[in-house]
Amino acid sequence: MELTSPGTTVGVVGGGQLGRMLGEAASPLGIELVVSDPTPDAPAAPAVRDQVLGEFDDEATVRELARRADYLTYEIELADPDVLDAVAEDTGTPVHPHPETLRIIQDKLVQKRRLAEAGVPVPAFRAVDSADELRSALAELGYPAMLKAREGGYDGRGNVPVAEPGDVEAAFDAINGPAMVEEFVDYERELAVMGCLGADERTTFPVTETIHEAEILRETVSPARASEQVRERARAATRDVLDVMQGRGVYGIELFETGDGEILLNEIAPRPHNSGHWTIEGCHTSQFGQHLRAVTGLALGSTGRRAPTASKNILGDVDGRQPARLTGVERPLSTDRLSVHWYGKREVYHLRKMGHLTLVGEQNASAGGLLAGIRDAAEPLTFAETD
Amino acid sequence: MELTSPGTTVGVVGGGQLGRMLGEAASPLGIELVVSDPTPDAPAAPAVRDQVLGEFDDEATVRELARRADYLTYEIELADPDVLDAVAEDTGTPVHPHPETLRIIQDKLVQKRRLAEAGVPVPAFRAVDSADELRSALAELGYPAMLKAREGGYDGRGNVPVAEPGDVEAAFDAINGPAMVEEFVDYERELAVMGCLGADERTTFPVTETIHEAEILRETVSPARASEQVRERARAATRDVLDVMQGRGVYGIELFETGDGEILLNEIAPRPHNSGHWTIEGCHTSQFGQHLRAVTGLALGSTGRRAPTASKNILGDVDGRQPARLTGVERPLSTDRLSVHWYGKREVYHLRKMGHLTLVGEQNASAGGLLAGIRDAAEPLTFAETD
Repeated sequence: MELTSPGTTVGVVGGGQLGRMLGEAASPLGIELVVSDPTPDAPAAPAVRDQVLGEFDDEATVRELARRADYLTYEIELADPDVLDAVAEDTGTPVHPHPETLRIIQDKLVQKRRLAEAGVPVPAFRAVDSADELRSALAELGYPAMLKAREGGYDGRGNVPVAEPGDVEAAFDAINGPAMVEEFVDYERELAVMGCLGADERTTFPVTETIHEAEILRETVSPARASEQVRERARAATRDVLDVMQGRGVYGIELFETGDGEILLNEIAPRPHNSGHWTIEGCHTSQFGQHLRAVTGLALGSTGRRAPTASKNILGDVDGRQPARLTGVERPLSTDRLSVHWYGKREVYHLRKMGHLTLVGEQNASAGGLLAGIRDAAEPLTFAETD
Repeated sequence: MELTSPGTTVGVVGGGQLGRMLGEAASPLGIELVVSDPTPDAPAAPAVRDQVLGEFDDEATVRELARRADYLTYEIELADPDVLDAVAEDTGTPVHPHPETLRIIQDKLVQKRRLAEAGVPVPAFRAVDSADELRSALAELGYPAMLKAREGGYDGRGNVPVAEPGDVEAAFDAINGPAMVEEFVDYERELAVMGCLGADERTTFPVTETIHEAEILRETVSPARASEQVRERARAATRDVLDVMQGRGVYGIELFETGDGEILLNEIAPRPHNSGHWTIEGCHTSQFGQHLRAVTGLALGSTGRRAPTASKNILGDVDGRQPARLTGVERPLSTDRLSVHWYGKREVYHLRKMGHLTLVGEQNASAGGLLAGIRDAAEPLTFAETD
């Protein structure tokens, strides 16, 4: 295993904050990145070698990435597995994770079926392609339930709760396409585990508790406030999920912990994930460094936690769409043990992910103490209204 | 205090490994860098927004940096204070640290005089501009001693030991210019402290032990194996040094601990320094992030140590000058708690600094254990001979 100059180049479909943090992690490993993104000067641009301007699923754009790279990967599910397959075959540039994995994950129905077949515990679900099918399915599953578009949803988009029979028509109209309905999980807590498949090894990061509001991740804390038995179930589910995945890379695995301590799979991302941002400071290797090691075939790093760690997203708190100007940063910058991450997005809008904070505690820090500390540090943060 | 997109841009004279690590630290803070360096595709290039091609002391190059930047700084002492002064005055672009500080530090005699005047303990020294003056000075200071060129030396270059009266002529001939001679310090241990002057605050990083061989830094370990009394003397000397420095930024302060526990100043660098690379993983804020916070006027971060930490330089172990290909990296990449930093230099030669390793220990790790661990991890590393 060698390091050279210039180093291995990875072409990344997507140049958002994940691409930016991949760029930050690439440099110490001597890895160079080229990203593709349709937005000029995307968030990743200042942190990587170059950006190719183009849509995520545009074949010419992906070919240009492949021309410049030794490996291809993606940081957004809007990448097109057929395009990736075709480019990989024509150019001989390996794609990790495998496009087939992306295909499985993009379709939430196919994803759930594959995982259920592999023995991963999942909530009860049914395919539904009409309001009538939804009504029949809910006669079995019961109310309330969550209707999900099979493709294209993220951060809660494409998910519609169905509280009672009278909601069925409106819920299906909101999706109006191939969908699945899933039993409502009355969870005790949400958990996430970042797993990684390397060339001939696999690692998992410590189990993390995730705190959502309106289906958008707000905070994480690790270790999760779950029993060791529950955490081991989460790790076991992660191992089962990784068995289904093809191709090297980091996978973000979101889980429910039920009231009786069982684990149910929620969703999978075939890439670094918001619930793993805390690993940048909180673990010996970050999810971003690990992903790049995996994709390029380097040995994986150790994933131990340095100390209990919390993270908190900085979300747009404005109504309109306007230039991004975050005020009140003196407190987080000055807070002991706290790190600030700004994604460089030009515009802010309501609930857009603009950055995050990470607080690494003392060895004996409590989850509650960490969350109180990070909330206090974030309290003055607000986006300035434009004049 | 605000964060915006695009962020503040800093122009950095110098695009070596320090510029590269500044680039890695800039991105999370939303700061963009443009570096200047005469070597095309310098080590910093892939990690920053752009590189301006030009000599460190070339005025047109520095003007181009200023045109593109909100602040100017430098990561190499070969920057020219007169050029920086002129460009700052003409363009209104602030330079940190102040060029006057660079002027003081560039001339080792002026540096020592200023520090001695300010009460910083320094080894006895004399200005010497001829072999005769050197002989007279050593009649007072005694043998052995270290003759130093007043300007231009680093990593031991420009330093000539004078063991006995018979060496005087040859030693002065080797320098052949304005010089100073310094008493030989029979030190117990070498220490380093990274200090930082912010807009209206100052911080110091934990006291670090540095291990040199042939005047090139090989390893660091923090905390240093010195008594708390000695460490407090080192911190006090650092505070006194910072009182003499003008302008914001990080200063690398190298110290001797004498056999009887006294502290003597060795040298100062007006920039992040090799003895502070361990802070990237070992402290809550790294020396690189701290320097950028200081230069751009942001609040300084907390400088506490996460855990005992060692670092080890990866130096060229070849004789000729050849393309850089480092073999044996699987062991360090796989070693628990260890991070690899590769600087992306295209060519390797004897003792060139090509990268470094950092090992963050458990809370109770010993300096000896950390050094043994990092040496073991580094053991297989060797540069491949070219065919």
